[in-house]
Amino acid sequence: MSAKPLKAGILGATGTVGQRFINLLSTNPTFEIAVLGASERSAGKKYNDATNWKLADRMPENVKALTVCVCDPAHFSSCDVVFSGLDANIAGEIEKSFIEAEFPVFSNAKNFRMYDRVPLVIPLVNPEHLAVVSEQQKEFNLKKGFIVTNSNCAVTGVAVALKALQLKFGDISHVLATTMQAISGAGYPGVPSLDIMDNVVPFIGGEEPKFEAELMKLLGTVNQTCTGFDSKSNMKVSASCNRVPVVDGHLASVSIKFASANPPSVDQVVECLQNYKSESQILGCYSAPEIAIDVRMESDRPQPRLDRMNGNGMSVTVGRVRECSVFDIKFSVLAHNTIIGAAGASILNAEVAYKMGLVFPK
Amino acid sequence: MSAKPLKAGILGATGTVGQRFINLLSTNPTFEIAVLGASERSAGKKYNDATNWKLADRMPENVKALTVCVCDPAHFSSCDVVFSGLDANIAGEIEKSFIEAEFPVFSNAKNFRMYDRVPLVIPLVNPEHLAVVSEQQKEFNLKKGFIVTNSNCAVTGVAVALKALQLKFGDISHVLATTMQAISGAGYPGVPSLDIMDNVVPFIGGEEPKFEAELMKLLGTVNQTCTGFDSKSNMKVSASCNRVPVVDGHLASVSIKFASANPPSVDQVVECLQNYKSESQILGCYSAPEIAIDVRMESDRPQPRLDRMNGNGMSVTVGRVRECSVFDIKFSVLAHNTIIGAAGASILNAEVAYKMGLVFPK
Amino acid sequence: MSAKPLKAGILGATGTVGQRFINLLSTNPTFEIAVLGASERSAGKKYNDATNWKLADRMPENVKALTVCVCDPAHFSSCDVVFSGLDANIAGEIEKSFIEAEFPVFSNAKNFRMYDRVPLVIPLVNPEHLAVVSEQQKEFNLKKGFIVTNSNCAVTGVAVALKALQLKFGDISHVLATTMQAISGAGYPGVPSLDIMDNVVPFIGGEEPKFEAELMKLLGTVNQTCTGFDSKSNMKVSASCNRVPVVDGHLASVSIKFASANPPSVDQVVECLQNYKSESQILGCYSAPEIAIDVRMESDRPQPRLDRMNGNGMSVTVGRVRECSVFDIKFSVLAHNTIIGAAGASILNAEVAYKMGLVFPK
Amino acid sequence: MSAKPLKAGILGATGTVGQRFINLLSTNPTFEIAVLGASERSAGKKYNDATNWKLADRMPENVKALTVCVCDPAHFSSCDVVFSGLDANIAGEIEKSFIEAEFPVFSNAKNFRMYDRVPLVIPLVNPEHLAVVSEQQKEFNLKKGFIVTNSNCAVTGVAVALKALQLKFGDISHVLATTMQAISGAGYPGVPSLDIMDNVVPFIGGEEPKFEAELMKLLGTVNQTCTGFDSKSNMKVSASCNRVPVVDGHLASVSIKFASANPPSVDQVVECLQNYKSESQILGCYSAPEIAIDVRMESDRPQPRLDRMNGNGMSVTVGRVRECSVFDIKFSVLAHNTIIGAAGASILNAEVAYKMGLVFPK
Repeated sequence: MSAKPLKAGILGATGTVGQRFINLLSTNPTFEIAVLGASERSAGKKYNDATNWKLADRMPENVKALTVCVCDPAHFSSCDVVFSGLDANIAGEIEKSFIEAEFPVFSNAKNFRMYDRVPLVIPLVNPEHLAVVSEQQKEFNLKKGFIVTNSNCAVTGVAVALKALQLKFGDISHVLATTMQAISGAGYPGVPSLDIMDNVVPFIGGEEPKFEAELMKLLGTVNQTCTGFDSKSNMKVSASCNRVPVVDGHLASVSIKFASANPPSVDQVVECLQNYKSESQILGCYSAPEIAIDVRMESDRPQPRLDRMNGNGMSVTVGRVRECSVFDIKFSVLAHNTIIGAAGASILNAEVAYKMGLVFPK
Repeated sequence: MSAKPLKAGILGATGTVGQRFINLLSTNPTFEIAVLGASERSAGKKYNDATNWKLADRMPENVKALTVCVCDPAHFSSCDVVFSGLDANIAGEIEKSFIEAEFPVFSNAKNFRMYDRVPLVIPLVNPEHLAVVSEQQKEFNLKKGFIVTNSNCAVTGVAVALKALQLKFGDISHVLATTMQAISGAGYPGVPSLDIMDNVVPFIGGEEPKFEAELMKLLGTVNQTCTGFDSKSNMKVSASCNRVPVVDGHLASVSIKFASANPPSVDQVVECLQNYKSESQILGCYSAPEIAIDVRMESDRPQPRLDRMNGNGMSVTVGRVRECSVFDIKFSVLAHNTIIGAAGASILNAEVAYKMGLVFPK
Repeated sequence: MSAKPLKAGILGATGTVGQRFINLLSTNPTFEIAVLGASERSAGKKYNDATNWKLADRMPENVKALTVCVCDPAHFSSCDVVFSGLDANIAGEIEKSFIEAEFPVFSNAKNFRMYDRVPLVIPLVNPEHLAVVSEQQKEFNLKKGFIVTNSNCAVTGVAVALKALQLKFGDISHVLATTMQAISGAGYPGVPSLDIMDNVVPFIGGEEPKFEAELMKLLGTVNQTCTGFDSKSNMKVSASCNRVPVVDGHLASVSIKFASANPPSVDQVVECLQNYKSESQILGCYSAPEIAIDVRMESDRPQPRLDRMNGNGMSVTVGRVRECSVFDIKFSVLAHNTIIGAAGASILNAEVAYKMGLVFPK
Repeated sequence: MSAKPLKAGILGATGTVGQRFINLLSTNPTFEIAVLGASERSAGKKYNDATNWKLADRMPENVKALTVCVCDPAHFSSCDVVFSGLDANIAGEIEKSFIEAEFPVFSNAKNFRMYDRVPLVIPLVNPEHLAVVSEQQKEFNLKKGFIVTNSNCAVTGVAVALKALQLKFGDISHVLATTMQAISGAGYPGVPSLDIMDNVVPFIGGEEPKFEAELMKLLGTVNQTCTGFDSKSNMKVSASCNRVPVVDGHLASVSIKFASANPPSVDQVVECLQNYKSESQILGCYSAPEIAIDVRMESDRPQPRLDRMNGNGMSVTVGRVRECSVFDIKFSVLAHNTIIGAAGASILNAEVAYKMGLVFPK
């Protein structure tokens, strides 16, 4: 195999999202895994020894013997791009040091998502938000460094469906979503089995405010000066987040009302979702799914176990599109929380940025 | 032990709801299990041999040797009251034959719930609807026979909470509920394990229309002539029903809007729910829980595994009462689907009817 | 209610086993919960605030407001007896301090189980081992203080069944057991859900050697001088311990060979197990189950969800007794791991000791 | 893509094993799916409409529109080979009709497994048993038709490990195995969720006798006249079979004793298992895994969720190889029950038969 064009570093490589980064990058034609960063505790060990690998897909052979280093930019000098699966409690400072060291950073952490000049991007929703990167670089006096974040995993599927509808039918005025989220969303060790076996936990710390705020930014537009974003702050969003005993795949029951007095019919909504194509797909990015939204017409789909790997985990699956007796339309939507909802989104964001010339080999 | 005042027959005694009837009646001071009815296949066998007992509570000793008979009124002549846990596909005809044979029937089946002169009663919500029984008897020329139904298990918890709020703060104009329902709600064999393990199924056949229609009737009032009910047909209700891998206990995330322009605050809602007492409790019925609605102030309750047996499964548990950015208030509510959501409701309905003189010993 | 004769302290009161001690003692007629000990982190808080209660049974009202203290004998002066649910990594030192402070200690921790003068007692197996307590006191120059341990939860059910058989049919020469153990055996947070959902883990640290060594001591006898125990060290025992996604209840598949050349038949084994009565039952102890071993004749029992609460969790359930084509007999056995396998065993041990005059009120 | 050499029919195509046949054959270079057979109920429908697809891998596009026919040889005239995933209650007669119609049949059903002239083959264990096919054809006067069966899914993993050891260290005299089997082994709808959630069922109908008898045949040899098999009937085998809440992957705890007075050490056993290569691998068959037995040295493997897809589900994973205090050696072994334990074994058997010239294109 010929050399991949870009060398990638992974921050938080031993964690749940880090493992998914490695799993996905190992077959990616654009990025080559070059450096693995983790905590002091793991540093100096072979990746195979440092990591409690929890994916059903096996650990790629070529990372097993890589030596893990601490998350210091000095160790990442060979990298053209850095992916971050760091925990929020440490991501802020570390990611800042990488940006300042002129690395393009694609981060799954929440810390910078709501900053003015930081794009919050789901590649199936709003890759056009990357246009703010140059203003971010100007503001902070950076040449090559910048940060692009992807969204909370719970909001991902909902945002993809709503973006498709907003493009076609205009603004959505009300969104009520109840999520049923998988345990892998909490990392490892994450949710104790005594908390979730034969149980549902109707609370996930900080998740509902993130869902509501991020959705407004994701569906918003770049402002006129390209220095930030006009959020859909008029849209009323209410989320109720639940943890369910499912390994992977966040499901949501969603009811929406359109701003328009003439909302679309169920058939029009179905057709719109089926035909939706995001910019990342049109650009022909490797990780972009063939179908952005797989609309199932059976009465009982989507289901996490059967549909989460749709489009290799990069597609969103929608089902049960029907009239809502309170709002206009209701439906169920599923997205793989660690692929399109986390690591996969970061990677596809980076592929878009590569196509746009924002990241490039040394 | 002195004799219990009333002799009870159970229709569908070998099924999931029938087992719960037996489990609950075995310690009930008012009703004595006298006759067990089931299908031809079970008839003639000892209950112990006919039944695939699936409750963690053991089968009561005194029913083990009872001979199961078919569900023909001729076999139930010793009974003062009949409880029905029959499947909907056969409940209609069988229950009709018992009513005509002058038995008071307390049914968990859906068949007659929406009939004009048939009370649909959750004992923590609307026992006053029993006032229509005398008109039902008049209409069908019955002396002692009648039918009282209880509601779908998914709507139970929501109805209890909303009734408390409606009494105090006036009509509720909008209800959006997403349920996460336990597998025991589907009976036995019910949900195949391949469908629900590591999974959520976003559909339960017929459940959403039942939820919506029954809630309007439950929160409605007896009409002026006592010949039927004025449903809350102006209330807009939208339900999304999901099956989750939980053994017992239906959980729902609920958002509501009050008709009033001055809706109550979160604190007022909490206080109202905490103080709610239903008629069945005030009457001092044996099966009525001490607390109708247990309001939890922790951030992560109610949870099915930890809260479903609250009040011996007859209480409803509410938590996470908070403002809704779309409507006024949102909360989570849990009810044990086979106790207050099914067999327990039927039994408490019968206890209320006994206190009111509608059922009585021979 | 009249005062209970003995005041009890609980060490490790906020943990999984501690919660079960509280749950069981709250209705016990002999012991009154007097003092709750836990770590520095919990000390000074109300029990209700200090504890992440994980049992489906509700926290008893009367302990909610008790102030938790550290596990120092100085705080336990009102207690006649102390129960320990401490983690092994701290149990050794703390329990030693309580013994030296002249408290009778009934411990679920492993630290002292294999000591020469320390009885390792399952109350359905070998309460006669308590005879060594006086020698223990002599050895360590104690008047009232001593320690009695109960066994590892995985070996409990097997030991009960084997003791019954050994009494009737003589020594057992070979035991091969494969356990399928519940998650509650690992405490809280214990097993991460990502490790056990849709999974089995074929390893539990330290469990197999404990199983093998403890079984030999449990089935052994007090030596002639009452200074220790003659273990069944000739018995060959091999255990394979697995963790399965079950909340409570340890199940084992067991194959055994008798030392006798004329081993009993399946029918004789069934009859022996059914008729077995342990000393703790004969003494009429409150917590002793009516039936020590519930032998099920159906083809598919025991099952954790349906049988673990047998005898309020103090009975052992055996099923599938049949010939083994390698050894003589094989069967399945189930025991509730936190009741008869942990806290319940400690409490019943203490009840036996009370009947024997080893513990007494101040 | 150039045409695949052989056209394949699938009997029982809509069932759990049938779905796995389709899933695996869709990417197989040797076999092209040509005809799908199922019951009268499905016949005439498109496969997509007739099938309740339960695999996480999507239904291959090219089978969706195939019309399902009944399992009558007349409909399979285009086929060079037939795979059977039929239920045992109908497999006998149908498979007989296909053999008599001169089709090579590779069957997962149990009906003919123990017949004298019928090879019972796990391709990682005993492909040399295919040598009896010609005698089978002679006996029944067949030219091209014959039947080859694969084993019960529970015994598969154990048989692979024991074959490796037997080849190197001689006969194994005693085998004690306790299985923990996945729900997919019972087909669909199969195990009711109320039976297995938060539970283990210590019984699977007919499984233990099959395990014991099939293991002896699998480890046996072709007799001198090539007319049948010399089973390892002196080997003592005892199996205890349990159903656990796992979707896919049968795990077993196994203890064995060698006939030899000088049994191998743990290290020798590990080395032997690691180096084992079966004939199907040496022949270079497409579906043969690179590694027959993946021996894990970590303390807590194999685990169904993490290891079942090892070698695309065609490898067997062994772990925890250690001394047994009753026999010589004990270990845990895992095999994917619907791949190497069912459909995958049938397919690899057919590939071996193709290499041997027993099946060929028309």
